Amino acid sequence: MPPEASSSPLPHPVNCPVGVYDSGYGGLTVLRQLRKTLPELDYLYLGDSGRAPYGGRDVDTVLDFSEQCVERLFAEGCRVIVVACHTVSCVALRHLQHRYGSDERRILGVTIPAAEAAVGRTRGHIGFVGTARTVASHTFRTEAHKLKPEVKITEVAAPLLAPIVEEGWEDSEIARLAVQRYVAKFSGIDTLVLGCTHYPLLEKAFDELTPPDVAVLNPAPEVAERFRVWREQHPGFAPQGSGSLRVLSSGDAANFARHGARFLGEALPMVEHIAEQNGRLALCPEGSEPIGQVVR
Amino acid sequence: MPPEASSSPLPHPVNCPVGVYDSGYGGLTVLRQLRKTLPELDYLYLGDSGRAPYGGRDVDTVLDFSEQCVERLFAEGCRVIVVACHTVSCVALRHLQHRYGSDERRILGVTIPAAEAAVGRTRGHIGFVGTARTVASHTFRTEAHKLKPEVKITEVAAPLLAPIVEEGWEDSEIARLAVQRYVAKFSGIDTLVLGCTHYPLLEKAFDELTPPDVAVLNPAPEVAERFRVWREQHPGFAPQGSGSLRVLSSGDAANFARHGARFLGEALPMVEHIAEQNGRLALCPEGSEPIGQVVR
Repeated sequence: MPPEASSSPLPHPVNCPVGVYDSGYGGLTVLRQLRKTLPELDYLYLGDSGRAPYGGRDVDTVLDFSEQCVERLFAEGCRVIVVACHTVSCVALRHLQHRYGSDERRILGVTIPAAEAAVGRTRGHIGFVGTARTVASHTFRTEAHKLKPEVKITEVAAPLLAPIVEEGWEDSEIARLAVQRYVAKFSGIDTLVLGCTHYPLLEKAFDELTPPDVAVLNPAPEVAERFRVWREQHPGFAPQGSGSLRVLSSGDAANFARHGARFLGEALPMVEHIAEQNGRLALCPEGSEPIGQVVR
Repeated sequence: MPPEASSSPLPHPVNCPVGVYDSGYGGLTVLRQLRKTLPELDYLYLGDSGRAPYGGRDVDTVLDFSEQCVERLFAEGCRVIVVACHTVSCVALRHLQHRYGSDERRILGVTIPAAEAAVGRTRGHIGFVGTARTVASHTFRTEAHKLKPEVKITEVAAPLLAPIVEEGWEDSEIARLAVQRYVAKFSGIDTLVLGCTHYPLLEKAFDELTPPDVAVLNPAPEVAERFRVWREQHPGFAPQGSGSLRVLSSGDAANFARHGARFLGEALPMVEHIAEQNGRLALCPEGSEPIGQVVR
């Protein structure tokens, strides 16, 4: 159902926004770069924060959730979706591309742009820090080795960092100590890739706690630049818009708007609540979440 | 299917173990108390560590996961299950009891024993610290007020503590600082309930960081004592055994055995791996988890 052919009853004037999908808040750091690079496009962000973090989940669950999210974004009129979440990009991207990709719909990830940026910058040894699921997939290593097989790559899982940022404690001593412990697991790297969209909020700690000859690499600008180049070749997937932004979240909408501003670097518009109904993510008013014992 | 009537092909000699269910490692602190109190029983522990923590998840997900876990334990021959996880106990216990409870099968939780212990000890103001989902349910407050309506109760969500313990960092400065930040949210309490099975591993930090007139309360001994009394009245649900223990985990089995010893206070037996297959948790060998991009 190409959105221009439908007479949508939705009150939203946006026809063909760029979809940006993440398990939670983190992808707003990618959206921020996209809006900086291509401010004239319309964007629709989906943060699956009610079910975040994805990093400790099994593969089937990541596939299921990512299908639901991508289907929601296409149903809202997107023709291209940027999967900002490294966990989804590393595990489910090819599945999503096989299942939903077509001449009219595309799904792009962050792992290949991250690998290209890192391989282009390294002197021989790349460090990569991400969630447990991202690291277990070894997809970053696979992609980097396709580009340059002789590069050495060390991947470290940092399961506590995303929860620390979700808690809003990224400027605390707790965050510094946690970054320090994870950074200490690397040895001899010259480039450190922040392989989770939450970690750019810890960039200062990473910069201070890595040796001065290690470049800390936030892939988000590279993702945005790659998207800009891709769009020049595929303009129909993301036509000129008015710079509008809609945000959907499966978590608490008010919380998402409040915390999200730290990630986006500006205030968010009113966040619309989505929830799973019969295996699909549907727009639905909040406050329907039950309190106390639930009997179904 | 009462287990004594089946000619099970399973190699396990245990017929009717007490099921103990938790989202991850934490419930091993409850199992430890149960085995101390009733060492002659057989036990079957299920830690859903592949999908832990539950604390930030939505209600539907908690219901779904808890149904799968309870079904697995009953399929293994349990007639009674102790839900050690406060998140499940606070949100899903009544649902599980309605759906699975019968003259032959019972499901018990930890919230009411915790509330009874706290109400019996307080001088008037109870603090309760738990996961986000546990606190949002207000089930502890509800149960405590049933016992003594005039007691004041302050509930604080501590979303970072379970992940810190899961990471094995409970003795770190990070753990101390995090406990300190959460404890600072209470004012004027005389009793502090550790409302998550992970928190007893942080008991030392809690003891040191709360004022000396605040009693820090780990509900596990009360849960075990209540179970002992209940079993005297319902001996058929947990017949005399040989003190055996089996452990199932949906996460990495070797990791679970290694980390689990900290919670149980002794070495674990070989951990058997379970994973979701078609919406059910099945026993399945490990190493079948795919690496890299997955296409279904």
